[in-house]
Amino acid sequence: MCLIMEAAADDNVVDGGGVLAAPSNFSMVEDGIYRSGFPKPENFGFLSTLNLRSIIYLCPEPYPEENLMFLDANNIKLFQFGIEGKTDPPTPMPKDTVLDALRVLVDVRNHPILIHCKAGKHRTGCLVGCLRKVQSWCLSSVLEEYQKNAGVKWRQRDLNFIEAFDTASLRQCLLSIMYRYHGYGFKRKRLVHEEENVQTPKPQATKV
Amino acid sequence: MCLIMEAAADDNVVDGGGVLAAPSNFSMVEDGIYRSGFPKPENFGFLSTLNLRSIIYLCPEPYPEENLMFLDANNIKLFQFGIEGKTDPPTPMPKDTVLDALRVLVDVRNHPILIHCKAGKHRTGCLVGCLRKVQSWCLSSVLEEYQKNAGVKWRQRDLNFIEAFDTASLRQCLLSIMYRYHGYGFKRKRLVHEEENVQTPKPQATKV
Repeated sequence: MCLIMEAAADDNVVDGGGVLAAPSNFSMVEDGIYRSGFPKPENFGFLSTLNLRSIIYLCPEPYPEENLMFLDANNIKLFQFGIEGKTDPPTPMPKDTVLDALRVLVDVRNHPILIHCKAGKHRTGCLVGCLRKVQSWCLSSVLEEYQKNAGVKWRQRDLNFIEAFDTASLRQCLLSIMYRYHGYGFKRKRLVHEEENVQTPKPQATKV
Repeated sequence: MCLIMEAAADDNVVDGGGVLAAPSNFSMVEDGIYRSGFPKPENFGFLSTLNLRSIIYLCPEPYPEENLMFLDANNIKLFQFGIEGKTDPPTPMPKDTVLDALRVLVDVRNHPILIHCKAGKHRTGCLVGCLRKVQSWCLSSVLEEYQKNAGVKWRQRDLNFIEAFDTASLRQCLLSIMYRYHGYGFKRKRLVHEEENVQTPKPQATKV
């Protein structure tokens, strides 16, 4: 009898000795999609086990040099979408920027992908919330997930943003077909299609 | 140019019309591992998109008839481990039972798998916490994840249980090799091995 098992093909192995420190507020969103707070150097060991191909970074501040070096060393592409965090008065979440980030997010060529902002709560939560709407999750499930990740810091205006977000234009993007046609748990059904009329994602910044 | 995309191969499709209601406290733990509160009939549509092969149910109460019918209709195997919930005085988490559940959980032949108890907070949280220890997550990351899912209902004794839980015996179980050797994000490295000296999991109850 045979078993399909997972085994390391390289030396980058944790075998009981070391421990892996996840970034704050880390969790798995989907097969190939992760979310977290801002990764620190002590999280790089953990991140390297994810085999990331891309990172979506949702803050306007420049990416730290040590993080850029980690990305270079691991051949990870950076998509930066500069969304303002806490401001007084509050800056509305820019829906066109979120839509651009969503286009990058649903493109499986960018997976495995990590989404992060600073705390992994508000900007990241809004982007994931919009993804869930594309996936046809009911609104109460979307908001519950947002609140679970934001904890006591949840913001009513983020919930309003997610509820009002219109995913129609994304639904016309061929790259999103894996979500549009099979909201969740799609991994057993993979088809290869010719690329036709693909709307290429236009991130504000790509490889650094 | 070709794109690998996801598309539905059957009629079980959500295409903008219907919405999918996730069970309460639902989230993805790992590729092929999910967790939640007790699924209700209104969540069956969502669950069917996960292509589940198994469910780990952590309560002693009998599984509801309508849930059993859903499992039968979708060919989902039920592993029940009867762990007491809230009692006065509190019942200690039974470590041997958690270990048995863990053996089922790390066996990829049971994936995709959903873990649930009643609220998806304490019993489920302890099992997932022990899984993270097997995966070499550092304790602070494990406890953060537990607390995020338990919210204000988190229990100090659960944190103590997770911290004290000894994963050594599981590490000697060949079925857990995918976690032991590649703590996370292992999906790109699949090898087929001969099954040798496998300790077969012994759930307290299996198919109902």
